Amino acid sequence: MQQNYSSRLLEETVDEFATLPGIGRKTALRLVLHLLKQDDKTVEHFGNTILRMKAEIKSCKTCHNISDSEVCNICADPYRDKETICVVESIRDVMSVENTQQYSGVYHVLGGIISPMDGIGPADLTLGSLEEKVKKGACSEIILALSTTMEGDTTNFYIYRRLKDFQVTISTLARGVAIGDDLEYADEVTLGRSILNRTAFEDTFKK
Amino acid sequence: MQQNYSSRLLEETVDEFATLPGIGRKTALRLVLHLLKQDDKTVEHFGNTILRMKAEIKSCKTCHNISDSEVCNICADPYRDKETICVVESIRDVMSVENTQQYSGVYHVLGGIISPMDGIGPADLTLGSLEEKVKKGACSEIILALSTTMEGDTTNFYIYRRLKDFQVTISTLARGVAIGDDLEYADEVTLGRSILNRTAFEDTFKK
Repeated sequence: MQQNYSSRLLEETVDEFATLPGIGRKTALRLVLHLLKQDDKTVEHFGNTILRMKAEIKSCKTCHNISDSEVCNICADPYRDKETICVVESIRDVMSVENTQQYSGVYHVLGGIISPMDGIGPADLTLGSLEEKVKKGACSEIILALSTTMEGDTTNFYIYRRLKDFQVTISTLARGVAIGDDLEYADEVTLGRSILNRTAFEDTFKK
Repeated sequence: MQQNYSSRLLEETVDEFATLPGIGRKTALRLVLHLLKQDDKTVEHFGNTILRMKAEIKSCKTCHNISDSEVCNICADPYRDKETICVVESIRDVMSVENTQQYSGVYHVLGGIISPMDGIGPADLTLGSLEEKVKKGACSEIILALSTTMEGDTTNFYIYRRLKDFQVTISTLARGVAIGDDLEYADEVTLGRSILNRTAFEDTFKK
């Protein structure tokens, strides 16, 4: 449906919002009309925050997480175990693991996952700097916390092959039936795997 | 769920996006991470477009539609019938009517609808300038194109009472069964009204 915007400025702004993922032109129009109704200061703050974020946000030089300074809060925290590195795909996964409050090591953000379909190969990820850290003997364990998809497993195997000759323990996230799941509805691959990889009772409920 | 953002700048931007209607913090984060992945120029353009829109967009002094100049495209169009004024609630409704390509008159945007629940009274709408136009005898017909809700009808009656003594025809949108609707599922109020207000066969299918 071709919309007849009476203002070119409005149309341009709608176009910009419509480039965001999951935002169509109808939603974009709703967002822009909402912004138009706000007072000048609010909208200025909105626009300026976006500009400032892009201009000032940095990537942590150690773990490639986003950060306001050269080294991110997590890498700079003296209470964090620097010898354990959790390898994740993206910044968002760092947040997910942090939210569990079960992890006190540091991270390494790959910036993607090996996916030939999308043209993403090992060279596009931050694997070089990960290997560097391992080579220096700076870490004792690498936890591969990637998605349990085809691409995730490809990346898992690739990293394993590249690092297995170094003095480092490589582990992956436990796979099994999700907590709260009804067995009836668990898929057979997951359920089969969780029988093969069954855990000692005491380990399952350990603190 | 408290998210642990490793960057204050990121958090602020997410907060800004989360103020938009229908955008929660999860969606906001997705949008912001998308923007972060774009190159500098794209994001700058995004931010600047918002700032420019708010700073430069105007309200048409004749019809209160948004516009890039003092008078909007529709009011400035010499082929538009200036004697017919379609009264709508918002800019969005102007677009809806324009999209039908069935209307060649001009508009008057009220900027809202009388709604005591939301504290919106006649004084909050652009009714003064509408009355002014009618008083000057500049128009021959007022088409009330408001929502067929309680608030819309309240506003319809209010405008009718205020303008009925002037030399002007006041009409409202036709109400009836929507085109493409199954009679079985039409609500009884609409169906009842469409029987009372039945239209001559020739009129129903007139061009």
